Amino acid sequence: MLDLPFLPFCILLGGLGFICVAFVSVWCQHWRGGFALDGSAQMFNWHPVLMVTGMVVLYGAAVLVYRLPLTWHGPKLPWKVLHGALALAAFGLTVLGLVAVFRFHNDHGIPNMYSLHSWLGLVTVLLFSCQWLAGFSTFLLPWAPGWLRALYKPIHIFFGSTILMLSMASCMSGINEKLFFSLKNGTTEYKLLPAEAVFANTLGLLIVLFGVLVLGALARPSWKRPDADSPDSCQ
Amino acid sequence: MLDLPFLPFCILLGGLGFICVAFVSVWCQHWRGGFALDGSAQMFNWHPVLMVTGMVVLYGAAVLVYRLPLTWHGPKLPWKVLHGALALAAFGLTVLGLVAVFRFHNDHGIPNMYSLHSWLGLVTVLLFSCQWLAGFSTFLLPWAPGWLRALYKPIHIFFGSTILMLSMASCMSGINEKLFFSLKNGTTEYKLLPAEAVFANTLGLLIVLFGVLVLGALARPSWKRPDADSPDSCQ
Repeated sequence: MLDLPFLPFCILLGGLGFICVAFVSVWCQHWRGGFALDGSAQMFNWHPVLMVTGMVVLYGAAVLVYRLPLTWHGPKLPWKVLHGALALAAFGLTVLGLVAVFRFHNDHGIPNMYSLHSWLGLVTVLLFSCQWLAGFSTFLLPWAPGWLRALYKPIHIFFGSTILMLSMASCMSGINEKLFFSLKNGTTEYKLLPAEAVFANTLGLLIVLFGVLVLGALARPSWKRPDADSPDSCQ
Repeated sequence: MLDLPFLPFCILLGGLGFICVAFVSVWCQHWRGGFALDGSAQMFNWHPVLMVTGMVVLYGAAVLVYRLPLTWHGPKLPWKVLHGALALAAFGLTVLGLVAVFRFHNDHGIPNMYSLHSWLGLVTVLLFSCQWLAGFSTFLLPWAPGWLRALYKPIHIFFGSTILMLSMASCMSGINEKLFFSLKNGTTEYKLLPAEAVFANTLGLLIVLFGVLVLGALARPSWKRPDADSPDSCQ
């Protein structure tokens, strides 16, 4: 492939991640009535903002830590801590995002966990929590033997990409669902493609672009830590 | 990772792919009124069946061709032809699936291409058509020089996985959308989780499981063609 340096790519990706968060925030602020903490529809609005920020953008930053060339030399522990801390921050935002939607549902008598979006989202979050706990226990706590780290590492890497992919699919189904809910009788219908629909559909495609670029960066051999397969990298 | 042989896995995956096609067919036949070619809602029903069969199951089979150990020895051309033919068959079903939904929309005065599901689906199909044409021109036609094949091969491999991932996200948003359309006033609402909702949500998760297993098989180093990075593999 073309020899693109990682750092300019990383700045571009950071800009795209910022645009995704800005787009989802503007959508909820401008078209969906803004934010609140009172169980209203404005409380629901925290759900898309926190999920996109946590499960996509911050999660994307967490999985790319070891692609930074300055992490390749010297002690690995600080970078492991950064990787785990970013993932934990992403998980924290995700939990708050779930609190927002459950509280909104409960306060309005809407059942929880019935749509495919919610099933897929739950699977994604459960996998993410298992991934974080298993990663923390195996790579950050000192007692896992080398053979266990070596055995688990490719599984951890594979599920790192898989969880991001499932997050993207959850976002797509969630944005689609929200637009069908919101754009009906009282406003311009979704199928007439008002400005809000164009804006939120664009948000969806930007999230996909962000996720694909992260997955592309993960897959690129020349951006991998040079000792990625050596035994010491597992210790 | 654990040393699982490819062929039993492949049989398991084939069974899961068959179950996905059976589930989407049963959903459309039993709950959505069956199939027709007259522009009615029964014509629309071909859309999910053909997209799941083409863009997920047959596409999954196409991308795994080079993981079959019997493709690793002897001339590569027959396997290239099989890979391209399976992908072309998947693309053919996809086009028919698009015809079904466009015809249904046009006959009912419903605008095309307004939902995020449709935008994402279109991006996926456009990428797939570019991928097929570029793959055919570079790897099957004889005139591409070795350096071009070597340059394009990792891009082709990356987009092979990316397109499957986008297909899965399109399926999730599509099934979710269809259930919100179908399960409303005239029938048991989606949020009350009737049998159809449980069945179609399960279909969604089965599609995700199928896709993740295909991506896992592609990522597994011991299942890759041993000479995958050698120059002759690009010829």
